[in-house]
Amino acid sequence: MDDLLGRMTIEEKAGQLTGMWVGKLSMSDSGTNVAGLVEQTLNDVKDAIRTSDIGSVTPFGTGISPYNNPAVTSRIANQLQRVAINETRLGVPLIIPVDAIHGHANVDGSTIFPHNLGMAATWNPDIVRRSARITAKEMRATGATQNYSPTADVARDPRWGRTYETYGESPHLVQELVAAEVKGLQRQEASISDGVAATAKHFPAYSSPARGEDAAPVDISPTTLRRVYLPPFRRAIDEGTLGIMPSYNSVDREPVHGSRRFLTELLREDLGFQGAVYSDWLATEMLPNNHRTADSLPEAVRQVLDAGMDMFSVGGPDTTDRIIHLVESDLYPEDRLDEHVRRVLEAKFRLDLFDDPFVHPSDASDIVGKLDHRQVALDSVRQSVTLLQNTDETLPLDPDLDSVLVTGPNADSINNLCGGWSVVQNDNYRGSTIRDGVALVTGDNTSITHEPGSSITEARDLDRVRSEAEDSDAAVVVLGENWYIHEFGPRSVTGPTDEFPKRDQLRLPTAQRQLLKTVHETGTPTVLVVVSGRPLVLTDVIEHADAVLMGYLPGKEGGQGIAEVVFGEVNPSGKLPISMPKSMGQLPQTHDRLPHPAPIGESEHSPSYDPLFEFGHGLSYADCSYEEIETGQSKVGAQETVDVTVTLENRGDRSIEEVVQLYVRDRVSSRVTPVRELKAFKRVSVPAGESTSTTLPLDVDDLGVVQPDGDMAVEPGVFQVTSGGLSTEFEVV
Amino acid sequence: MDDLLGRMTIEEKAGQLTGMWVGKLSMSDSGTNVAGLVEQTLNDVKDAIRTSDIGSVTPFGTGISPYNNPAVTSRIANQLQRVAINETRLGVPLIIPVDAIHGHANVDGSTIFPHNLGMAATWNPDIVRRSARITAKEMRATGATQNYSPTADVARDPRWGRTYETYGESPHLVQELVAAEVKGLQRQEASISDGVAATAKHFPAYSSPARGEDAAPVDISPTTLRRVYLPPFRRAIDEGTLGIMPSYNSVDREPVHGSRRFLTELLREDLGFQGAVYSDWLATEMLPNNHRTADSLPEAVRQVLDAGMDMFSVGGPDTTDRIIHLVESDLYPEDRLDEHVRRVLEAKFRLDLFDDPFVHPSDASDIVGKLDHRQVALDSVRQSVTLLQNTDETLPLDPDLDSVLVTGPNADSINNLCGGWSVVQNDNYRGSTIRDGVALVTGDNTSITHEPGSSITEARDLDRVRSEAEDSDAAVVVLGENWYIHEFGPRSVTGPTDEFPKRDQLRLPTAQRQLLKTVHETGTPTVLVVVSGRPLVLTDVIEHADAVLMGYLPGKEGGQGIAEVVFGEVNPSGKLPISMPKSMGQLPQTHDRLPHPAPIGESEHSPSYDPLFEFGHGLSYADCSYEEIETGQSKVGAQETVDVTVTLENRGDRSIEEVVQLYVRDRVSSRVTPVRELKAFKRVSVPAGESTSTTLPLDVDDLGVVQPDGDMAVEPGVFQVTSGGLSTEFEVV
Repeated sequence: MDDLLGRMTIEEKAGQLTGMWVGKLSMSDSGTNVAGLVEQTLNDVKDAIRTSDIGSVTPFGTGISPYNNPAVTSRIANQLQRVAINETRLGVPLIIPVDAIHGHANVDGSTIFPHNLGMAATWNPDIVRRSARITAKEMRATGATQNYSPTADVARDPRWGRTYETYGESPHLVQELVAAEVKGLQRQEASISDGVAATAKHFPAYSSPARGEDAAPVDISPTTLRRVYLPPFRRAIDEGTLGIMPSYNSVDREPVHGSRRFLTELLREDLGFQGAVYSDWLATEMLPNNHRTADSLPEAVRQVLDAGMDMFSVGGPDTTDRIIHLVESDLYPEDRLDEHVRRVLEAKFRLDLFDDPFVHPSDASDIVGKLDHRQVALDSVRQSVTLLQNTDETLPLDPDLDSVLVTGPNADSINNLCGGWSVVQNDNYRGSTIRDGVALVTGDNTSITHEPGSSITEARDLDRVRSEAEDSDAAVVVLGENWYIHEFGPRSVTGPTDEFPKRDQLRLPTAQRQLLKTVHETGTPTVLVVVSGRPLVLTDVIEHADAVLMGYLPGKEGGQGIAEVVFGEVNPSGKLPISMPKSMGQLPQTHDRLPHPAPIGESEHSPSYDPLFEFGHGLSYADCSYEEIETGQSKVGAQETVDVTVTLENRGDRSIEEVVQLYVRDRVSSRVTPVRELKAFKRVSVPAGESTSTTLPLDVDDLGVVQPDGDMAVEPGVFQVTSGGLSTEFEVV
Repeated sequence: MDDLLGRMTIEEKAGQLTGMWVGKLSMSDSGTNVAGLVEQTLNDVKDAIRTSDIGSVTPFGTGISPYNNPAVTSRIANQLQRVAINETRLGVPLIIPVDAIHGHANVDGSTIFPHNLGMAATWNPDIVRRSARITAKEMRATGATQNYSPTADVARDPRWGRTYETYGESPHLVQELVAAEVKGLQRQEASISDGVAATAKHFPAYSSPARGEDAAPVDISPTTLRRVYLPPFRRAIDEGTLGIMPSYNSVDREPVHGSRRFLTELLREDLGFQGAVYSDWLATEMLPNNHRTADSLPEAVRQVLDAGMDMFSVGGPDTTDRIIHLVESDLYPEDRLDEHVRRVLEAKFRLDLFDDPFVHPSDASDIVGKLDHRQVALDSVRQSVTLLQNTDETLPLDPDLDSVLVTGPNADSINNLCGGWSVVQNDNYRGSTIRDGVALVTGDNTSITHEPGSSITEARDLDRVRSEAEDSDAAVVVLGENWYIHEFGPRSVTGPTDEFPKRDQLRLPTAQRQLLKTVHETGTPTVLVVVSGRPLVLTDVIEHADAVLMGYLPGKEGGQGIAEVVFGEVNPSGKLPISMPKSMGQLPQTHDRLPHPAPIGESEHSPSYDPLFEFGHGLSYADCSYEEIETGQSKVGAQETVDVTVTLENRGDRSIEEVVQLYVRDRVSSRVTPVRELKAFKRVSVPAGESTSTTLPLDVDDLGVVQPDGDMAVEPGVFQVTSGGLSTEFEVV
């Protein structure tokens, strides 16, 4: 590689740091283009490769690209690689990134998994790893070689529109699933010839913007940065993630893309990252335009390079020219330019692109959306659906009941099951809506009535719904959100009343609540299914339902998976990966809150953590009890592992899966540590009528406290471990 | 003083660091005592002075003390001083602190000013200084020598129950008023023989606890700490505040009382504070009990001393013993003990207590609540009341109208006008409710009807209210909150429905909204007066009123002051010192928000700052227009001052006072700086029909940006200045 680098001109080096995209990124009905992006055709990009040695192209994968068909996308990828290899002096292949956030979901017919928040509800790293592996295969088959994933952000504010892209509120849960995703995408081999590059994002803290507003400043303490937001990035780096993407926002008033403190001192020097840093789209332009920390775009380019950013993901030839000018004017040293280029080339070597970057269109068609891939997506749904409430054992419904009403704005919508970052407004989806799923799992003699009852924001035909409900043996009411990306703009809002979803409102719109109430008032057993990318405020809602299921954004297989749970084919085993608040006013609600004084007495303070449904909550159709908890050692060293054994008994008559969760409290520490914090978990099977003991290793090293120098160290003393209402402790010596 | 210190035993030194209080601090109807406090009688305390050389006693001033009468309190103070001086070996006088938060308001008949949020609405440092001077006189007359005030906290979350104790959301406004208060309390002389010691609190950041929950962790970035929370403390220190009180909570996961980083490195080494640090009541106990950063109380005592805390405000003899034990066991060095004692003795010398600490009970009765004192309180109300809305010039009402209905839960309550930190549940208040005020300012022939209409949470007799409203020429509806301290516990809630006030609810209870709507529907001109310690969410409320006034917590003179504004005797000139949000979900809303990107286009983002009423908003009965803005210099140096001249024209027929506000934006800076930030203001008079030019000096040094080393430095470049819709700019070279 040094040989290749040695032969490159400044122009060729600059080109390698520059990316482009193909398409027209219009996010609103009004056709407004996303912040400054202009349409670029395939030919524009080919020309730029020839003239500017562009090193990275995103030709599809935004949902707005004209190229979504597997065979077509693979041909496009081949065309682009041919230009790069045959029509540039050195023939360096392209890296081809996409946002394959929950499957290669911008390509038609691909396998679409639940969005991360739903994947997290499985608490199953293995299925996350397998799903990422499938995503990598489907990507690679179409010529895409880098995934702008995993999302390593820890969700701390449900107002934020990207909550569904996260693995939830717990740093531990997020880090374990991020590690699994990196493993699945990259596989752990020197050459990643059939995997893709992972890009852990959005470093270092994106997910608690002011007001929940996307890309607004994140204002957190250094300790919270280290204890809450960094662990998933640390794990991604330990797992060898090839890429890191910085966050758009400012942290401690430094725009991350322009921050040497974050991108070099923290990321490389402290965390040891050696891969390449890829800009989040137009982040460089945001320095002069929004953050106002650069007085011009050329100065912004210099700042981000100096900070440690390597690839301008959609920079285009103008950026290439700016880089060249900086180096030629001695405003940026060439030896530092070389460092950036070396990291990008290293990724291309690791991805085996120099050997053969071409793909076979027929493979693409065969591999994308293969049945066994979709089976994993369906299994993910089955494990993610979370039973929040089940009054009088309303669920499961009898699949042979005479009649069932299916209603609600999300009862018959694939788009809303999938959520953002999917091939949108496309009727060719193979997959089942919940209405389809109910038809699939009920008996031949069951009569299914479908009434929308309401759009997201406007009720319709409630009288008809009422009379249908009265005539039905059960009703499945599917409420929730429209699909959205980033924020809740005009395009995600269909009606003029009760604008929803939007960030300052987590309550369901009046129309949807009316619909539910109308159905429930008939006395017909009412099952509420929530299809939503974030925890909504369901206070005053759940009283109008007998059973409540959280469906998250389950993807194309969601209809079948949810219906299987409703009708008892599958026992629900999902657990909330995020707390569901009682109101907007009580945010933030997270299980790992810090203890604090109550100066005028506990009785005067309403509780600090008082969600409607707790983190980790999830009911089952079986009766599973926690019988015993034991630690293998009562005293351990700081580098050791404590084995914690939990015994479960399944008193029911069906085999179940239960997610055992271990929460730890450091009794006394030099800094304030959480009242409890998830530190281990394991999904275990418990056969009907049996007891099972399962041992979870608890890594003591994971229980460190941030020291004055910023490092983490485990402090001697007693630690309490709780699980399912049981408690034990051990001592670190 | 060194002589005195040299003669002291370890026991005597330890006693000087220990405080006690007299009373029973019960904050709830159920009689629960505040976190761990037990009743202590006057004799208990006298014995402790004799046996343990206790150095500080709070014998009154909590509202729960049995001693509230001026003559009695001064006698109690004298008794305690006599024990300290005559019955201890060295005869060191006591320091006697009270929480005289808005006047010496725990003593009967004292002058009660609006709570700080209301004082801040005057935007008048001079009246704040004068009111503090009066508070100091009334305190000193009763023997109290230290005020646990000013509150230097910057309000950033209206959910927080202590919002009313702050001077609002702007660091600049807060710092100017804090400086004025310190000046008024202490006077700037070497000996403060007729002033009292100021105690700026709660250092360094208390006011944005998680969830708005009092004393919950504050999690902010280092830059926000420096830019938002520290400026008022810096100014208090520059003004010579003798005391600093740390905050109860943890900041960056360090309990402030036990944090050497905050109490020594930041407070003394960086900010140069040389006075004494006084614990907030039971904060030491909170280290082992709540924060869990100490494994025992003795260890907590060692930690807080080591951190830099000097006085255990309510420690009692047990604490004295613990300090003695620490020093005798070589767990704490005696020379460091001496440093603490020296600071406490220094305060007593500065307060001239060694000369004569005694007071004259007859002076106390004469001075407390003097008429000219109360006149200043009334003027404060007149300047604070803020006219938010005045549809069709409904206000001012004609004082000679035939009939007026006065209704609402706060229409006839002195307690709720006063708010917490007042002599509560005491019917001897001299002062006017709003009902009284209306009677005072209306003509002899005006018939005034009073109907409560609602308690804080329960409507009553709405039919009668409706018919009275129909029969009246105007209605004044006084809604808002019950009084509270710290949080919103049982004692502040009167009814079982719609619990209010509480931190997760800023909307007025249904009952109060019903009452307002009932009145407004009659078509009678409806004036809404909000009596509340924090900005409530008035969305969906203001449409049911023709005029809306924010009254804050105006104190005993509030009824008259508000009525004078309603009936036009006084032209409203108050301006909001805090933004009034549209909803809970859009918090935090502050005028000085940071700019940031909108990744998917501005049209998809709802606005970042979109309050119902902006910071600085406040209408007038006159027509005042901003004509011109000019800077004296177009280029200035970083240490210089820019003179900004604003020309106002009063087109009305009455003389007015207007608060000119200057907002500054740093166009480009190394870190992200606010889109606009209040940096200067001035209350000016504009005679009827005239133009006035006023010049505000803008201190360029105040426009610094936090540098990587944590210091602030002014960066060269262009700064924009805006005022009243006008704009100009200057360049720092």
